[in-house]
Amino acid sequence: MSITFLGLGNMGTAIVRTWLKAGYAPTVWNRTPAKAEALAAEGATAAPTAAAAVEAADLVVVCLLDDATVTRVLADLDLASKGVLNLTTSTPGQARAHAERHPGARFLDGGVMATPPMIGTPGAVILYSGDRDVFDRHADPLRVLAAADYLGDDPGHASLYDIALLSGMYGMFAGVAHALAMVRAQGGVDLDEFGGRLVRWITAMTAVARNDDPAATIEMQAANIPTFEGASRELGVSSELLAPYFELMRRGAAQGQDDLAGLLIRG
Amino acid sequence: MSITFLGLGNMGTAIVRTWLKAGYAPTVWNRTPAKAEALAAEGATAAPTAAAAVEAADLVVVCLLDDATVTRVLADLDLASKGVLNLTTSTPGQARAHAERHPGARFLDGGVMATPPMIGTPGAVILYSGDRDVFDRHADPLRVLAAADYLGDDPGHASLYDIALLSGMYGMFAGVAHALAMVRAQGGVDLDEFGGRLVRWITAMTAVARNDDPAATIEMQAANIPTFEGASRELGVSSELLAPYFELMRRGAAQGQDDLAGLLIRG
Repeated sequence: MSITFLGLGNMGTAIVRTWLKAGYAPTVWNRTPAKAEALAAEGATAAPTAAAAVEAADLVVVCLLDDATVTRVLADLDLASKGVLNLTTSTPGQARAHAERHPGARFLDGGVMATPPMIGTPGAVILYSGDRDVFDRHADPLRVLAAADYLGDDPGHASLYDIALLSGMYGMFAGVAHALAMVRAQGGVDLDEFGGRLVRWITAMTAVARNDDPAATIEMQAANIPTFEGASRELGVSSELLAPYFELMRRGAAQGQDDLAGLLIRG
Repeated sequence: MSITFLGLGNMGTAIVRTWLKAGYAPTVWNRTPAKAEALAAEGATAAPTAAAAVEAADLVVVCLLDDATVTRVLADLDLASKGVLNLTTSTPGQARAHAERHPGARFLDGGVMATPPMIGTPGAVILYSGDRDVFDRHADPLRVLAAADYLGDDPGHASLYDIALLSGMYGMFAGVAHALAMVRAQGGVDLDEFGGRLVRWITAMTAVARNDDPAATIEMQAANIPTFEGASRELGVSSELLAPYFELMRRGAAQGQDDLAGLLIRG
């Protein structure tokens, strides 16, 4: 089963390198050839063009800069009867559109829930949806990269999960950035000690985020918002990252509505 | 060592009840007496006024609606030579101001890193700073409530940690709300399964939030923002909660500045 890999950014390079270490010998292509040549020195076959790269492939894996690049690169290729696995971050609608534009190909979409250094390690997960047969047929190399979860035949489903999970992460990153800005602005804080405490606290509170705690209504939480705003002001830290959540809590409290996620969904 | 507790909201009630179960018999006061009477039926002594409640106390614990209420209630009390533990959420400056307004009292500030149902369970932590002697003298009842961490003699320090840790949590809550709104807007998703996955993912990514990952620069992450915005639009979900973080990532990328927390600190 020959695999071709298109796009050798940090993620693509990490994936190809993991396959090479596991004994697979993918064909690789990148718009700028230096990255393909580096991997060729480690055992990959570098192809001069994307068209040449996919010719003999059973599975074409795509991990490019963005969805527009995927559309452009795939437009020139003969993908008839090939398995195509798109690992590029895309919206659910974009993932479905690739499948529709290439009805002769068998499309599988993948959402990589890992950073490049995590590929091939136990913490990595890749979510898949779309063509089940492509997923099953290439299960062995896919499992070398990460735990492989198949979510169903809608090619947009893996992307929905990917984007939603990453959105959750970005919210957490925003909270961490605000917290670190506060203790740095105060000064005299052991940042490693605080960081460890912050991670343990956020981890513990993920359970509260999921299971509504009847003891902490939105009204009660909203009553504390001025303290958060005041502390940020005292410390000279912008509260821009948390302001919309505070605003949403206030709106929820005014409406007696604890379901803040529901307030984000347009009717 | 007699303990008086002022303020019987959900947190105060949970704390007093935990002490009662452990064999302590605190004196309690609340602005509206019904809550004090309920606890009196369980073994507490209900005092008719805050002044009466503190008269015989070695330690006066305060857990009121907000900092302004603390200021008002304490203003009328004779706190000379008493230990005062303030568990009300306040800014670092507000915590220090209480200590300064009552120089005869020995002030300890506490940040409760737990929801009321967590009080008395292994996951609960209370952070303390201020008068070390008050902390040491009452270590036994304090450890009944939660793991007790003393952070130093600045009475504002526990509050700084409290507010910063809660800020991190609110960011995470915002991310979770956005993620849940997306999968709910799509429909057909097992919300329990997704929620478990979201918690595991956010927990795994806390390590990335702390340790800068050289493989994922702000420039690369910023390049993906249109996909997040586009997916929210497709699904009819407001991206208001994440918009300021995306904006900050764009600013960081434009300035070649990966230290987003640093961009929040006003010079």
